[in-house]
Amino acid sequence: MAQTFWTGEAAELLRVGPGFRLQDVDPAATPGTDGGKRDGAAELARSAQQLRGLQEKLFAQSRLGARERLLVVLQAMDAAGKGGIVNHVFSQLEPYGLALTAFKPPTEEERAHDFLWRIESRVPGPGVIGLFDRSHYEDVLIQRVRGFAPSDEIERRYGAILDFERRLADDGVRIVKIMLHISPQEQAERLLARLDDPEKHWKYNAGDVEERVHWASYMEAFQIAIERTTADHAPWFVVPANAKWYARAAVQRIVISELQRIDPRWPEPDFDVAAERARVAGTLELRWPA
Amino acid sequence: MAQTFWTGEAAELLRVGPGFRLQDVDPAATPGTDGGKRDGAAELARSAQQLRGLQEKLFAQSRLGARERLLVVLQAMDAAGKGGIVNHVFSQLEPYGLALTAFKPPTEEERAHDFLWRIESRVPGPGVIGLFDRSHYEDVLIQRVRGFAPSDEIERRYGAILDFERRLADDGVRIVKIMLHISPQEQAERLLARLDDPEKHWKYNAGDVEERVHWASYMEAFQIAIERTTADHAPWFVVPANAKWYARAAVQRIVISELQRIDPRWPEPDFDVAAERARVAGTLELRWPA
Repeated sequence: MAQTFWTGEAAELLRVGPGFRLQDVDPAATPGTDGGKRDGAAELARSAQQLRGLQEKLFAQSRLGARERLLVVLQAMDAAGKGGIVNHVFSQLEPYGLALTAFKPPTEEERAHDFLWRIESRVPGPGVIGLFDRSHYEDVLIQRVRGFAPSDEIERRYGAILDFERRLADDGVRIVKIMLHISPQEQAERLLARLDDPEKHWKYNAGDVEERVHWASYMEAFQIAIERTTADHAPWFVVPANAKWYARAAVQRIVISELQRIDPRWPEPDFDVAAERARVAGTLELRWPA
Repeated sequence: MAQTFWTGEAAELLRVGPGFRLQDVDPAATPGTDGGKRDGAAELARSAQQLRGLQEKLFAQSRLGARERLLVVLQAMDAAGKGGIVNHVFSQLEPYGLALTAFKPPTEEERAHDFLWRIESRVPGPGVIGLFDRSHYEDVLIQRVRGFAPSDEIERRYGAILDFERRLADDGVRIVKIMLHISPQEQAERLLARLDDPEKHWKYNAGDVEERVHWASYMEAFQIAIERTTADHAPWFVVPANAKWYARAAVQRIVISELQRIDPRWPEPDFDVAAERARVAGTLELRWPA
């Protein structure tokens, strides 16, 4: 834990436990810290090296056969700050070991398959940190709220997700599911801010207002999805996100904490170090042009 | 151009022109700057915002239909610093708009297709900066040097690459090909450094020494590939890379320069801003829990 910013373990405070009720989570709260905006930015910068060091070890050990990897699932209402999490937290990682997928509404080909078909193909390989901006949870969130799938199909999906994530976990995937939680007032302010800034117009999507009016139904769908799919091997975290600086520092802390659970190590070389040193030394006279 | 570090336009100084001879390029040179290691690191940090700003506009305009994108091809001898370029230059970009592919020796399936089959599938989409760590140039470098393909097949590939890159350019892909150029002495020192540091053992590949002894053949293959495939729509740049700080700052400057040629703009909104503002404002009273 960092020295000054965190007064409590964010990863524990934000982890969904028994009896979880979304309506009890205050989107404006900042559990685990008494800091403010400037402190949050400083903490984010300070812990970058710790995050990157863990990632590098995770990647390194996979080169010699370790299968562990991390999959982070980000879900939220529009304008809740997923993009900022990607650009301020995950951009701290080395590009080689990061696999980002931004899931869009399913294509015709994707709809012709089971809902997990397109997800499976994006599961990160050994040593890689996978990041899903939206995910298979859209299939029990917007699809439930807007009635895009029959209710018995939605019911089936909760169990299918549990089985799917269990299988990934058995194969070495540590799964972390994060809901960024904002208030409807905060969302309105952010949408208006996008409309007020010509450099942000491209981020505005008229469809967001149509989803916005279903807020209560979305919160119900989140509550159900979280309740039914949180598990020791694939926990949910609900991160208050009205304060962007808090959400970013908290997600960084959760990712660090989960990487620490994996506990990656520098791998032992599979070659004879002294012999290789002699081989390289034997070519030291090589010059070009000769 | 940045104020203090660059005394000349790196992108122009390093661009391959008529009569190019690789053996005339000094891997220890630092064309366009009188600075040193510390200045290079400072320049890299200082220009990060310019790079990211250009990337964001490129991405933004694609959301409203613009097709332009950038494809950066990195080729080099082992230990020349491709990884450092990715981790220090391209990691400055937003993950959403960066598509990195590290090409490995072709799989059995890939070998069963034409050599450009696996390349085509990794060409970046509109608005995205694609980065190839190795590429289709391996098919005229290692494959030529080691005789993995017959010489008439190697001959055929230069023309096929020209046609392929011409087609991409016609579709809005700005292609930039970069060779990081180190001396064989510098490579030996870097390989020995990897062997001396247990945290770098995982980066050491015994096969690198086997390629190393073919240095002259590799340089000949680079010379031919560069000569035969450099074009206005797909230029080659040869970057002296004995000094890592120089190579990183120079590649950053080349990428910035090429993005400036694309000249991306904030797109015009395809909606009525005032009307959308009124729609959002009409939902300002929304509360949850109600």
